Amino acid sequence: MIQVSIAGGSGYTAGELLRLLVRHPQVEIKSVSSTSSAGERIDTVHRDLLGETDLKFTREVGDADVLFLCLGHGLSQEFLYTHSISQDCRLVDLGNDFRNKPRFDDREFIYGITELNRARIRKSHSVANPGCLATSIILAMAPLAALGLIVDDMHAHTVTGSTGAGRIPNDWTHYSYREANVTIYKNFEHQHIEEIMGALNAVAVEERADGEKAGALPPLQWVPMRGPFTRGIIASVYTKWNGTMSEEALIKHFCDFYESSAFVHVSEKQVSLKEVVNTNKCLLHVEFHNGYVHVTSVIDNLLKGASGQAVQNMNVMCGLDETLGLQLKGTAF
Amino acid sequence: MIQVSIAGGSGYTAGELLRLLVRHPQVEIKSVSSTSSAGERIDTVHRDLLGETDLKFTREVGDADVLFLCLGHGLSQEFLYTHSISQDCRLVDLGNDFRNKPRFDDREFIYGITELNRARIRKSHSVANPGCLATSIILAMAPLAALGLIVDDMHAHTVTGSTGAGRIPNDWTHYSYREANVTIYKNFEHQHIEEIMGALNAVAVEERADGEKAGALPPLQWVPMRGPFTRGIIASVYTKWNGTMSEEALIKHFCDFYESSAFVHVSEKQVSLKEVVNTNKCLLHVEFHNGYVHVTSVIDNLLKGASGQAVQNMNVMCGLDETLGLQLKGTAF
Amino acid sequence: MIQVSIAGGSGYTAGELLRLLVRHPQVEIKSVSSTSSAGERIDTVHRDLLGETDLKFTREVGDADVLFLCLGHGLSQEFLYTHSISQDCRLVDLGNDFRNKPRFDDREFIYGITELNRARIRKSHSVANPGCLATSIILAMAPLAALGLIVDDMHAHTVTGSTGAGRIPNDWTHYSYREANVTIYKNFEHQHIEEIMGALNAVAVEERADGEKAGALPPLQWVPMRGPFTRGIIASVYTKWNGTMSEEALIKHFCDFYESSAFVHVSEKQVSLKEVVNTNKCLLHVEFHNGYVHVTSVIDNLLKGASGQAVQNMNVMCGLDETLGLQLKGTAF
Amino acid sequence: MIQVSIAGGSGYTAGELLRLLVRHPQVEIKSVSSTSSAGERIDTVHRDLLGETDLKFTREVGDADVLFLCLGHGLSQEFLYTHSISQDCRLVDLGNDFRNKPRFDDREFIYGITELNRARIRKSHSVANPGCLATSIILAMAPLAALGLIVDDMHAHTVTGSTGAGRIPNDWTHYSYREANVTIYKNFEHQHIEEIMGALNAVAVEERADGEKAGALPPLQWVPMRGPFTRGIIASVYTKWNGTMSEEALIKHFCDFYESSAFVHVSEKQVSLKEVVNTNKCLLHVEFHNGYVHVTSVIDNLLKGASGQAVQNMNVMCGLDETLGLQLKGTAF
Repeated sequence: MIQVSIAGGSGYTAGELLRLLVRHPQVEIKSVSSTSSAGERIDTVHRDLLGETDLKFTREVGDADVLFLCLGHGLSQEFLYTHSISQDCRLVDLGNDFRNKPRFDDREFIYGITELNRARIRKSHSVANPGCLATSIILAMAPLAALGLIVDDMHAHTVTGSTGAGRIPNDWTHYSYREANVTIYKNFEHQHIEEIMGALNAVAVEERADGEKAGALPPLQWVPMRGPFTRGIIASVYTKWNGTMSEEALIKHFCDFYESSAFVHVSEKQVSLKEVVNTNKCLLHVEFHNGYVHVTSVIDNLLKGASGQAVQNMNVMCGLDETLGLQLKGTAF
Repeated sequence: MIQVSIAGGSGYTAGELLRLLVRHPQVEIKSVSSTSSAGERIDTVHRDLLGETDLKFTREVGDADVLFLCLGHGLSQEFLYTHSISQDCRLVDLGNDFRNKPRFDDREFIYGITELNRARIRKSHSVANPGCLATSIILAMAPLAALGLIVDDMHAHTVTGSTGAGRIPNDWTHYSYREANVTIYKNFEHQHIEEIMGALNAVAVEERADGEKAGALPPLQWVPMRGPFTRGIIASVYTKWNGTMSEEALIKHFCDFYESSAFVHVSEKQVSLKEVVNTNKCLLHVEFHNGYVHVTSVIDNLLKGASGQAVQNMNVMCGLDETLGLQLKGTAF
Repeated sequence: MIQVSIAGGSGYTAGELLRLLVRHPQVEIKSVSSTSSAGERIDTVHRDLLGETDLKFTREVGDADVLFLCLGHGLSQEFLYTHSISQDCRLVDLGNDFRNKPRFDDREFIYGITELNRARIRKSHSVANPGCLATSIILAMAPLAALGLIVDDMHAHTVTGSTGAGRIPNDWTHYSYREANVTIYKNFEHQHIEEIMGALNAVAVEERADGEKAGALPPLQWVPMRGPFTRGIIASVYTKWNGTMSEEALIKHFCDFYESSAFVHVSEKQVSLKEVVNTNKCLLHVEFHNGYVHVTSVIDNLLKGASGQAVQNMNVMCGLDETLGLQLKGTAF
Repeated sequence: MIQVSIAGGSGYTAGELLRLLVRHPQVEIKSVSSTSSAGERIDTVHRDLLGETDLKFTREVGDADVLFLCLGHGLSQEFLYTHSISQDCRLVDLGNDFRNKPRFDDREFIYGITELNRARIRKSHSVANPGCLATSIILAMAPLAALGLIVDDMHAHTVTGSTGAGRIPNDWTHYSYREANVTIYKNFEHQHIEEIMGALNAVAVEERADGEKAGALPPLQWVPMRGPFTRGIIASVYTKWNGTMSEEALIKHFCDFYESSAFVHVSEKQVSLKEVVNTNKCLLHVEFHNGYVHVTSVIDNLLKGASGQAVQNMNVMCGLDETLGLQLKGTAF
């Protein structure tokens, strides 16, 4: 059994991680820290865990084989400065601290988009878990980046659920505001652009048959939207298609690209958001129109977009079956 | 033109009041005070008013023919202690300060359930606007109270929207929590019970043909629920029916009781919540079952349950047509 | 491995059953019949199963150790008349055909509220799976019925999600109608009353220490509501409390009553609907008020209210661990 | 008083038209036809109109000063073939029959995007009311088209509510499917593209200072999405900005362009969908990013996108104040 601990246990991603880990057949939860709720039962905060665990929050996080950091963006680095974590302890950081700046002391954080970096994650001790929106866009565009055929701006709109905004209530997660509403935010300026471009450029380079370094990809023009639902992201991404591949051949390329990836599926029909809610899956759908190639990508932001991918990365790092504890029943409705 | 002012202009009930008053043909808005937003344009807080008014919040509320208090429960009395309001100024308090304790200095606050207290409101200078849930239950039960035929416990469940909880975000108005959720709160102990029983007992007394004082009504057993929507209340209320009236005759009694009330309608078919959203209407539906009489009542909590009824009371106090500025297009969907 | 088949595979309960059975460690799905979709892949109808099964619908259902009937109410009996099912084949009927009339040929259908009838289900070959609303109310009231202390009318309101209305679109599952709406239907006349009273009377009889037959329970006064969400039922049930037990002692009785039931938990705090969504759990909360005992009960209508309980009954009938394949990650949000 | 009739009175756009017309101070409703509901009270179909009108549906539509056609797409032309409508009768067609083919007998249908075609509508007897999505995109892009500065593809995503899909229930308006879901449909191929390009090209031509005919505009790349709400459209549209105008100057141009338009407002802050729900307004917000100009546009699909604009066009045709009967209280929540 793998001993795991969670630092920062009261937020949404920690709650989702706990929902996964209490049922994971190879995991024993060692400790879950929370400064705000230390001493309380975990199910007083994550109410749906009633009947599933008797664990209590601790003030300090304990030793473990794997430590998940769910501390909030910018706080992981501070945590590592103030806590001495054994070099044997594997780290999965769910914050954004090490996604674009992967080095901390002797650790090098691998960007944890499992399907693209599986081999490197397997050999690693430290993973920077990707952002949820980043995951949805990267998985949509990576097969194109690998072909070296992204030759003009990428255009993306995403619609995302309220759990992405975290547990602290604010004006734009107020039910009276958000219900039946759609809003645009950080248009063309979202902070995930850097990690998306980093990941896609890495694919573009790696996959070049000739080993030559690909030039930087054209930019991503992206309008993020907030939608009236709690879980899930739909990404609609397109770019000019100057390739000679047919639509059929490109779809086959997508299938081949993700052939060994149990959680990514290419759907013949258009996909809808709820087909993946409460699963670790990413569904993709590819179409040609007007000289553009258009990809739809759907994920659950708390699972494939956060805690599910974190467990997936843990499985890979620990040499377990990548899908262990992640074959989840979706809600469908 | 009637000059009106609003004390406490940044909350939900004030916003709804402003939506009504900017279109009211006999009203001029004199001032709208807000300590938190003084100096700002009103449409920076109530964003949907963009293009409808150039008013700004003031720090202090100005003189007016009618002053609406939208200060939050318990703060109206404090306001009156610290501000000298002219005796000529009519007051409509949307807080709960004077509903059960109607005297303040020389003022006597009439409980502003317009349909039952119209004559007294017309002669009054001070109105305590009813609670939203109270309104829905009182209008459902008043025709029965008037018959003197409530002889056993009244049983009620209400489901209410998120705007009833006000503008400050909290855990149970967090979108991630409330969406697709239903919760029970203050079961059997809701603070509106006192004003409901007060209003219904008053009806029971007044309407007695023999002029005798009716005994106190049996108690109200009430389970309030929060529902996943923003506007509206549905109340399902029933009590044992020991009367000799037929269902048909009782329905006719309901129709007669509200004959002169433009906003209350008795529907032959079961009613649904959205039939009244964004209107000042109350729809009622009456059925007999198993020796019980069951009444369904639906209102918009921000209109008939708050700011709409406040304007209705202003209209009555000022001698205007009761429906002025309140013939609103519903949303239906 | 247990071979299972499903008759009537394209509806909501069959879809949910498939979501459970494709992951059940002791089950092999033999055949899934659908007259409307015969020959098509299952994931063309249940889209979220993309990537999880390559099964196709068949026209006729095949032999199996366990056969689930998901045919729609009133069609199970017809199915049994027109198909010869081996006496060795265990049946779980998700329709309402045998809940109140349990005999068909040599089979006797046990009412499948697992927590109350576990011993009889274990020895049985035929189970009539309970209605979803019935399940929520029975589990709330059974501990009281067992005490013989239900002495006056039971009062219930339930709010239920849209998946309870099935897959065929109609006026009251139209999104434009149902969103942000609450409606009352079949008040005091719901067809589940018979099975609820049957189950509770059976408990009342069985649990009497003196072995004497208890008199029939007082009636259930029940107002069912439709709510704006897809999954879940909340039941609010109360009755006069003439017992001498304290609130504390009664809560302990509830805990004891369900001690050996892995899916039923008594919560110290009030429960909300979403705490059980996408799980097979039932959460209960008990309070005393005004001489009444009030119980809140929440379940997922498609799981504990239908397909989850069906699998639970299969597990019991087949001698498996009752929780096998049912330890599901809830959605929480 | 203007006598109006509605052909096809039982659908959503007719219902919304009725909500407006029963309160319009210069309108008398003469007849409302419905083949399916002839003889029934209007409030049996449009339930929220209970207490507002005693009208009944007729089988045939009667004479009127203004006739609204709410028959469904493709049926208006058939209606005109089979009914002899007086040349004096003004027509507003809410179907799509005459948007792109404006001639029928002696009538020429003016494309009824009021803000752009006001002068021509004033002199006209026949208006083809625009599509709802078309309205949202045209109002966003018209000020740019007028500058002659749309030099590269326009990129649009829209998210639209369920009432746009009409009253007949289907799979994608099923509550269980649509709630908390987002889907993409008709991407790059929506049938409104033709009327959008027609309207924008007309602006481009008309507004050219030099009187020269502008070349055809670059194409619109548009991904329509369905969202989990009933009313409203948000359009996010952008195109490369090769102009020399600053962001500030362009915003001023937008304000000037719509200066005489009471329902279109340019917001300094980003806008959200619900700011316009239940109003006839269109709010626009303009920003520069990365060499693109990005416009957000929000409307209520049933009002500015359908029945509200129909009444607006009637007002203009009949020489009334354009805003009469359309100064609606928004819902805001």
